[in-house]
Amino acid sequence: MGEFELINLIQAIQSEYNIKQSPYINTAIGDDCAILKLPAESEFVVSTDTLINNVHFNDTLSAAEIGHKALAVNLSDIAAMAAQPIAATLNLTLPEIDQNWLTEFLHGFFSLAEKHQVTLVGGDTTKGPLSISVTINGIVENGKAIKRSTAQSDDLIYVSGLLGEAAFVLDNHAQDQSALHTPTPHIALGLALQGIANAMIDISDGLSSDLQHITTASAKGAIIHADAIPLGLQLEAALNRNQALEFALHGGEDYVLCFTVPKDKLGELRKIKQQFANIAEIGVITESPGLLLMQNNKTMPLAAKGYNHFNDR
Amino acid sequence: MGEFELINLIQAIQSEYNIKQSPYINTAIGDDCAILKLPAESEFVVSTDTLINNVHFNDTLSAAEIGHKALAVNLSDIAAMAAQPIAATLNLTLPEIDQNWLTEFLHGFFSLAEKHQVTLVGGDTTKGPLSISVTINGIVENGKAIKRSTAQSDDLIYVSGLLGEAAFVLDNHAQDQSALHTPTPHIALGLALQGIANAMIDISDGLSSDLQHITTASAKGAIIHADAIPLGLQLEAALNRNQALEFALHGGEDYVLCFTVPKDKLGELRKIKQQFANIAEIGVITESPGLLLMQNNKTMPLAAKGYNHFNDR
Repeated sequence: MGEFELINLIQAIQSEYNIKQSPYINTAIGDDCAILKLPAESEFVVSTDTLINNVHFNDTLSAAEIGHKALAVNLSDIAAMAAQPIAATLNLTLPEIDQNWLTEFLHGFFSLAEKHQVTLVGGDTTKGPLSISVTINGIVENGKAIKRSTAQSDDLIYVSGLLGEAAFVLDNHAQDQSALHTPTPHIALGLALQGIANAMIDISDGLSSDLQHITTASAKGAIIHADAIPLGLQLEAALNRNQALEFALHGGEDYVLCFTVPKDKLGELRKIKQQFANIAEIGVITESPGLLLMQNNKTMPLAAKGYNHFNDR
Repeated sequence: MGEFELINLIQAIQSEYNIKQSPYINTAIGDDCAILKLPAESEFVVSTDTLINNVHFNDTLSAAEIGHKALAVNLSDIAAMAAQPIAATLNLTLPEIDQNWLTEFLHGFFSLAEKHQVTLVGGDTTKGPLSISVTINGIVENGKAIKRSTAQSDDLIYVSGLLGEAAFVLDNHAQDQSALHTPTPHIALGLALQGIANAMIDISDGLSSDLQHITTASAKGAIIHADAIPLGLQLEAALNRNQALEFALHGGEDYVLCFTVPKDKLGELRKIKQQFANIAEIGVITESPGLLLMQNNKTMPLAAKGYNHFNDR
């Protein structure tokens, strides 16, 4: 099996899924570039992430899980902009073509792509140490994207799911590894928060680190209530609250949304909470910079010590 | 130096270059996604390529050459659509952060980016075996993109530069290695061919293979005149014509454009040739499928045997 047969296999597996090619895609796989034609009232959003063997995943992940995760972490960035994903490109570097592995990988990828109606429009296949880069394209109505840099003082801070579970799985080989292996991008919630949230990010590096991205970009600070942080279930069952908090604050790979909402939008947020049950209020944006953690009625500085690829953990 | 300092270094080096951020870029590096707002009369084109250490380059390339090449091979795909490049994302996987290497790499990348006014709007940095993926975004006026699939019978076939030199450098360690190490994307020519060329591709896999992409996608065939193929200078000097032809027909990595022009546009093409001196007519599109090579007044089938990443050469 050569490179061209590989591209044919990718297209054949994509065609097994019920992915209606967006009307905004004029040309997909098969030319030097894909061509997209966007509606006039929309902006275009772009993000990209690489997964490397033995860094972002290892032998405990199935090929299908790797395929799912490679797309999911990118979709999570689209969710964090309150955008609608449309198209993706896939750079697949493989040490050899193992058709079984590849087929399983592609089913993992396209199962998730089908769920969000994302069309694979291009990519590159090369020989080398296993790594996967996905670049994702989405659209959002003009001016409706939710950035990191627009949090306002006194905004309440929310997260959209349990924290720390992925990092706990990574360190403790917990029984249910789905939080780490098959994260769920919160696309529908991101879209629902248009016009409600002032600022948003997805938690990939860890709550402390990613919240600091919001506060730094917005020139604000934040106070987080330790007792309000929703803990992953296995994490909560296995550890005392302080140990568990370390994972939840700094662990990373949660791929839930962290967003800030002004008080005059809380009525609208209440309706959204009925649909998305896991939303939890965890703190407040402050005018003065820096992150503080409030625990047992005391506040202490909260260091942003999320994941950094080039430092040891 | 950690991941965040690395991102700061990338932005600092970009700011040393005179790259005027396109009015179509609303948000570049620094959020979950970049945001682009395209003019209503334009389509958006996307392409991506990965370069892997010891596959696409090796120790004979300087870091600056690797940076140049990673962007150049992507720009070449934009050229082949007759589009204008605007923005790029960079997935950089490094075994460690070597600041000297990285600085040199980035200067190579941004020197070329400046030349074509391409803004780096996002990316990902990870630790792992050295590899570089670039995804490039361009725009083209509605309907003006030149595809592979629209060649017409009796179109004349052209290439925009000398062929076989890059492959010759790769195999023979020729003195001037620039054809292989620092290819020049033919952006201006691509744009000039809007409304003139019926079909276009860039030659990355090799003339025979890439021309076959045009003929297959267009449901046509082609006859190539062996004596008309412009040979790389070192190639021509070192080998007899038949040996040299092997490199020129099948070598790959030329990154020149191959395009087809109907006879009623030859007057317009003549003007373009005054500006782009290396354009050479090499053959004709035929109604019947298949590739033929005409040499010494005989035609023989021409096998498409360009580069395939998963076969030995």
